[in-house]
Amino acid sequence: GGAARDGEMETGTEAAAAAVSLETLRKRMADFARERDWEQFHSPRNLLLALVGEVGELSETFQWKGEVPKGLPGWDEAEKEHLGEELADVLLYLVRLSDMCGVDLGKAALRKMEINARKYPVDQCKGSSKKHTHYGSTNSDSTNDNVNTSNKEHSNGA
Amino acid sequence: GGAARDGEMETGTEAAAAAVSLETLRKRMADFARERDWEQFHSPRNLLLALVGEVGELSETFQWKGEVPKGLPGWDEAEKEHLGEELADVLLYLVRLSDMCGVDLGKAALRKMEINARKYPVDQCKGSSKKHTHYGSTNSDSTNDNVNTSNKEHSNGA
Ligand SMILES: Cc1cn([C@H]2C[C@H](O)[C@@H](COP(=O)(O)O)O2)c(=O)nc1N
Ligand SMILES: Cc1cn([C@H]2C[C@H](O)[C@@H](COP(=O)(O)O)O2)c(=O)nc1N
Repeated sequence: GGAARDGEMETGTEAAAAAVSLETLRKRMADFARERDWEQFHSPRNLLLALVGEVGELSETFQWKGEVPKGLPGWDEAEKEHLGEELADVLLYLVRLSDMCGVDLGKAALRKMEINARKYPVDQCKGSSKKHTHYGSTNSDSTNDNVNTSNKEHSNGA
Repeated sequence: GGAARDGEMETGTEAAAAAVSLETLRKRMADFARERDWEQFHSPRNLLLALVGEVGELSETFQWKGEVPKGLPGWDEAEKEHLGEELADVLLYLVRLSDMCGVDLGKAALRKMEINARKYPVDQCKGSSKKHTHYGSTNSDSTNDNVNTSNKEHSNGA
């Protein structure tokens, strides 16, 4: 690893799409549901199950394929397009679920990336895939002291 | 349903977070992996499994709860914060997976919302949760003619 591959896969017409914000998607999903009077179906657990279903469809696109190199060199355009649709379905239900739970997904993502950076300090985990429990605890996340016990990720117990 | 609830759940400091774009998250996840020399672990199927794992953790936050009303009125702040972390983990792996597959997730989401709008025309599905196969086929999506047969969503066969 090491060398950055960013940019390599970008094509010409991405300027508009690059600006797609989670807030834009949230609003458009809300409009979509309201226009169809589908808010009645968009309860948190209905949306979670819909998301799980789409994750299943996403997984199907990778099944029986063995290891798949980055950039999917062997895939044809139709397969990539279908993959994009499944990735999008997961995202759209995730955005809608977050909205129906009153969670600001963009804010939560920024916050989680800060937690990740503290949990996996560069100097301690460079090149290693060991879980954070193998590192010293001085860098463990202190913002989670009040998280309930179901948050196994941050527990230090056995 | 019917009345819009958008805005209700927003708090004061969302201005910055509201602008969070998928491209920002993509870049930050790429930096995070590069700094740790973790690109070697971020193959498409590794990321997909990591995503599936996070979906499991997300599901855990809703398990045994029975129906959950919108806005999660009975949940305390710690539970909501934990939920936000799980939603974020799913999003971050989805963003990274898309990047490693060469898929522009924002673009794919905009495109999929257009497909959804055509697949579920307002006049035909208002208030009904019937699947699109129950509606007339005149509005079926024509951009998917070249999608392979694994795309069950759009097949018209038995
Ligand atoms: C049936 C249904 C669909 N969609 C949107 C979100 C997904 O992106 C896509 C999924 O459609 P389908 O179930 O036909 O795969 O349509 C939605 O928001 N709410 C629904 N009740
Ligand atoms: C171990 C690991 C973590 N994360 C990031 C993405 C998730 O948001 C979070 C998950 O960490 P954990 O496995 O400790 O729950 O950290 C990542 O990008 N790549 C990894 N190889």
